Amino acid sequence: MSIRIGIMGYGNLGRGIECAIKHNPDMELAAVFTRRAPETVKILTETAKVCRVDEAESMKDEIDVMIMCGGSATDLPVQTPKFVQWFNVVDSFDTHARIPEHFENVDKAASESGHVGIISVGWDPGMFSLNRMYANAILTNGKDYTFWGKGVSQGHSDAIRRIDGVKDGKQYTIPVESALESVRRGENPELSARQKHTRECFVVAEEGADLARIENEIKTMPNYFDEYDTTVHFISQEELDRDHSGIPHGGFVIRSGKTGWNDEHSHVIEYSLKLDSNPEFTSSVIVAYARAAYRMNKEGQKGCKTVFDVAPAYLSVLDGAQLRKHLL
Amino acid sequence: MSIRIGIMGYGNLGRGIECAIKHNPDMELAAVFTRRAPETVKILTETAKVCRVDEAESMKDEIDVMIMCGGSATDLPVQTPKFVQWFNVVDSFDTHARIPEHFENVDKAASESGHVGIISVGWDPGMFSLNRMYANAILTNGKDYTFWGKGVSQGHSDAIRRIDGVKDGKQYTIPVESALESVRRGENPELSARQKHTRECFVVAEEGADLARIENEIKTMPNYFDEYDTTVHFISQEELDRDHSGIPHGGFVIRSGKTGWNDEHSHVIEYSLKLDSNPEFTSSVIVAYARAAYRMNKEGQKGCKTVFDVAPAYLSVLDGAQLRKHLL
Repeated sequence: MSIRIGIMGYGNLGRGIECAIKHNPDMELAAVFTRRAPETVKILTETAKVCRVDEAESMKDEIDVMIMCGGSATDLPVQTPKFVQWFNVVDSFDTHARIPEHFENVDKAASESGHVGIISVGWDPGMFSLNRMYANAILTNGKDYTFWGKGVSQGHSDAIRRIDGVKDGKQYTIPVESALESVRRGENPELSARQKHTRECFVVAEEGADLARIENEIKTMPNYFDEYDTTVHFISQEELDRDHSGIPHGGFVIRSGKTGWNDEHSHVIEYSLKLDSNPEFTSSVIVAYARAAYRMNKEGQKGCKTVFDVAPAYLSVLDGAQLRKHLL
Repeated sequence: MSIRIGIMGYGNLGRGIECAIKHNPDMELAAVFTRRAPETVKILTETAKVCRVDEAESMKDEIDVMIMCGGSATDLPVQTPKFVQWFNVVDSFDTHARIPEHFENVDKAASESGHVGIISVGWDPGMFSLNRMYANAILTNGKDYTFWGKGVSQGHSDAIRRIDGVKDGKQYTIPVESALESVRRGENPELSARQKHTRECFVVAEEGADLARIENEIKTMPNYFDEYDTTVHFISQEELDRDHSGIPHGGFVIRSGKTGWNDEHSHVIEYSLKLDSNPEFTSSVIVAYARAAYRMNKEGQKGCKTVFDVAPAYLSVLDGAQLRKHLL
């Protein structure tokens, strides 16, 4: 029998989850839940329903895992603890500073209801976190580096679009190649924000807008751009739509460290991602963890988990003997 | 209280384990067990004992985890099931075709004795296996590639040294850069053995030996060299000792795959290692899994496990709250 998945929220991530379910034959999409009027929401899966959010509770016996596709700022802190009352859930909560608090809230609700809630799943937090953790456990005497990009930062793109006179815009975060190379050589450099990443902006200005002022406002924007070397290109809406409509991303997690009785040997562990579609890759990770949530709960586990708490085998459609034979 | 480690066998791997324990403050080396006369074996750790192998059973209350440092061909198939009667054990069994059989033997003995035995730990099998598995679970529609090197292959070096007229020698396995690049670009190439790796040999010939014959014997050796482009350099023993005494290794695990409703997006996941010392890195992985074996057994778990069965958090000296705060 298939694992029956619900999708809570149907934006980029929700659509990515729908596509990922198609790539996992042991799963099926049962329903999409939306705050919009259900009849206005068109989904790709013919066999699945579109429902109102408030219908979810009544469908608790029809869904094995609910995947939470809302935002980290206001949706997930409320929704994940709420829906784990009725379902196993997976979310991609990524507000780093609030993870401990979110974990506590989900753990309390999940422990009471007897469900499994896996939080902060995706690639960062998620696969990058896992690789940082494994590398730290192996090379205890070492140094961590995370580089992001080349990819679109939604937050920085939004910040550009809020500037007066800007009609549209997109921002790419780009790792500095020479910094990456130094880290890969095990040189353990101390790197400032500016030395690790550059920022490149493609901006569509409103007619008659003061381009010099816009460029200056971007480059000096506190927290977002002032600590980086930023390039600004003014282009037409047509060019933006044609050349910058994708949501690529990626990055590098590198740890270098020493072993030997006198720390005489160096090692470098590197994990990297090159992603055409950030939401679809995130979704692919989440769906594998939905399988884990389902299986762990079937075994009687409950409470809040993160990627650190999930034995890798739970993610795979293969059983233990197949994994040992084909992938070990 | 520290986790008390025993080392069974004191070769390159055993010495690596000893160094790795020094880098993990929650562990201590209790004893090294050797088939040699204990008084002839000098170890680095002043507080640890050197004992005969047959003394191990009597020390079962003094050691929490026994790390098996014998060879996969003849030692581990016998030793790991034997010592898991008395100890939690970790081994680095790497004879791929015999892993299912080894798993069964260790699982039977460990289940009966109530211990945890983690087998096939290291980097391949080990961290490479884990990365293959995670990447397969995420990108279900994709293709796997493993490249090894640049590094010393012990088996190929031994094969060279068995040739008549060869005094000493070392073989490096080297990934073909253009193949790596094609894989990284997501081109999903079909690659023969020759297209993936080249082999470079440094050979010390005996005085008066027929160098052309030796070179030909190497290059045409079935299974080892005949399917590869091989370069042979004749050098002096002094040069070999000076320039080729290390045991570096490493490699790349790459999976590329498609997502999207119509497989319209490509992604590449890459994990790579660059290691100055193959046995010391392998040891660092094993010691982290020794911590896991100890903790899992404390929780009441027993039986044979592989890296697929061990939740990542068990490897880290940090607790769950610390991991979530600092590494998620």
